[in-house]
Amino acid sequence: MTLIANTPEPPYYAVIFTSLRTPEDHGYGLMAERMAELAAQQPGFLGMESARDELGVTVSYWESLEAIAQWKRQVEHREAQRLGRSDWYAAYRVRVARVERDYGFGEQDAI
Amino acid sequence: MTLIANTPEPPYYAVIFTSLRTPEDHGYGLMAERMAELAAQQPGFLGMESARDELGVTVSYWESLEAIAQWKRQVEHREAQRLGRSDWYAAYRVRVARVERDYGFGEQDAI
Repeated sequence: MTLIANTPEPPYYAVIFTSLRTPEDHGYGLMAERMAELAAQQPGFLGMESARDELGVTVSYWESLEAIAQWKRQVEHREAQRLGRSDWYAAYRVRVARVERDYGFGEQDAI
Repeated sequence: MTLIANTPEPPYYAVIFTSLRTPEDHGYGLMAERMAELAAQQPGFLGMESARDELGVTVSYWESLEAIAQWKRQVEHREAQRLGRSDWYAAYRVRVARVERDYGFGEQDAI
């Protein structure tokens, strides 16, 4: 889950989630793991890439806007979104984007 | 440069650069700083967000595909791309995407 996602030929969609954490954990680590596990079970999920320093950058990939909308409405994920605003994040930004082309170098099937 | 980018209203473009490093530095840290500085001076540059754990995820934002193409051709950046493939990265993936909507919470002008 932390390596380069093996996505199909474009077009597909990306959700770029950029966040700044609050100082305390408040169960954040467990939630992040659970959300990654849950996202991977959603219809239309294609992969996820994530890293955190001062800033966290998580990109998830999806077959369609409808798959993204379904994931946003998923019950347990909605509760995580609520706790995100109240406890875990000082700020975040979500950007929904259509991947139009991709290219690379080295092993893509590293998962 | 490491916080949430203050991007304008969509549409605009994102370049999602995901990478796995080689074990040695080979001047990587200096190059990464220089490329961030240089990208920020390019026409059409809108912002950059970056984090690295095991995986590195850097998203840069641009006004247009033409601005992205110009940045890809920039002479010093081309040399960095060459050294990226020979020395710095075990693997990477570049995805060019059109940001269609965004929303968030908390301070966006944190830069």
